[in-house]
Amino acid sequence: MSSAIAASPPQILGTIRLADNRDVPHILKMIRQMAEFERLTHLFSATESSLSSSLFPAEDPVPPSDRSQSSSSRGAAGVRADLAEDRSGFPIADPEAEIFASVRGGGRIVAGFVLFFPNYSTFLAKTGFYVEDLFVREAYRRRGFGRMLLSAVAAQAAKMGLGRVEWCVLDWNENAIKFYQEMGAEVHQEWRICRLAGEVLQSYGQD
Amino acid sequence: MSSAIAASPPQILGTIRLADNRDVPHILKMIRQMAEFERLTHLFSATESSLSSSLFPAEDPVPPSDRSQSSSSRGAAGVRADLAEDRSGFPIADPEAEIFASVRGGGRIVAGFVLFFPNYSTFLAKTGFYVEDLFVREAYRRRGFGRMLLSAVAAQAAKMGLGRVEWCVLDWNENAIKFYQEMGAEVHQEWRICRLAGEVLQSYGQD
Repeated sequence: MSSAIAASPPQILGTIRLADNRDVPHILKMIRQMAEFERLTHLFSATESSLSSSLFPAEDPVPPSDRSQSSSSRGAAGVRADLAEDRSGFPIADPEAEIFASVRGGGRIVAGFVLFFPNYSTFLAKTGFYVEDLFVREAYRRRGFGRMLLSAVAAQAAKMGLGRVEWCVLDWNENAIKFYQEMGAEVHQEWRICRLAGEVLQSYGQD
Repeated sequence: MSSAIAASPPQILGTIRLADNRDVPHILKMIRQMAEFERLTHLFSATESSLSSSLFPAEDPVPPSDRSQSSSSRGAAGVRADLAEDRSGFPIADPEAEIFASVRGGGRIVAGFVLFFPNYSTFLAKTGFYVEDLFVREAYRRRGFGRMLLSAVAAQAAKMGLGRVEWCVLDWNENAIKFYQEMGAEVHQEWRICRLAGEVLQSYGQD
């Protein structure tokens, strides 16, 4: 999947492409920036190595640059990551422009990413998508990249006949909530996330 | 996976086994009962046919009764369903005992089920399990079946080295929240679920 949408304002030309193993350093940096934004760095333990082996387990170190969507690009849980790249060539005040130069070259700068995988609703008896991460780097916010990324996931879900696209938002992130509602999403107030992790989870593995 | 745990009080002998296509009528009835309990029947559209084709897409109509866990028992999103069965033989006041007689016979009664699939955390760079449904039929509640089912999922996650087991609970379901906390789960207050579905989702598929 690749799509170009001219977002406004101002006029920025963004492209979405499937991520591969070469993009892991950029993805890791963005995940870390997201953890900082969400004030959740204490939960962060990913490394380039662990991200690479879990997201792209079957890939060659240097896959062909024209590789399109394929099963080999999905991790154990069917995870898929897409990158948004800016190729407008306009001078955006981006202090990290060099760090985030796309591995594909051509002056493209990695602006954000979305990462999602299949989930399942028994009420619908249908597969859906769960969006684990949607992130746009600070210099590229409010330019349409987030809308572009989430729209691409929704478009693929719709074309595949899936039942739902779901994700989570922090209740204090008012800008994100407003954006998601503008995208047509319902924000459900009555559900709470429960989690077993760490040593508590490990204790269940001891017979 | 099959495990027997003597829960108390009172003394009930429960067994957990992998569900297969023959269990679909029982699973569908329990999903519907869960929707009624959660006051969410307006979101319910599953049928035996849609549940069967999405949960057990590659199965024979009558799989061998001794079939153990295999990849063919997983649906498109890696979905797995386990049934809890009561085989204590004690007379429990269960008005639906005949309806929920296990397809495996032997006097076993289907008491509940758990349905889960893989998810992925970028913060951990690890796969986990997401528990979509955990349900125990009314006559069998407060007898340890819920603990048995959730413990089995947690035990498998721990043994596979997964990072997390996650699920959602309704904020008014105080008994469930208390139970999950007793199981060692953290109940996160700050996340809200967002959802694109129905006609809004379909609209993204139109270019």
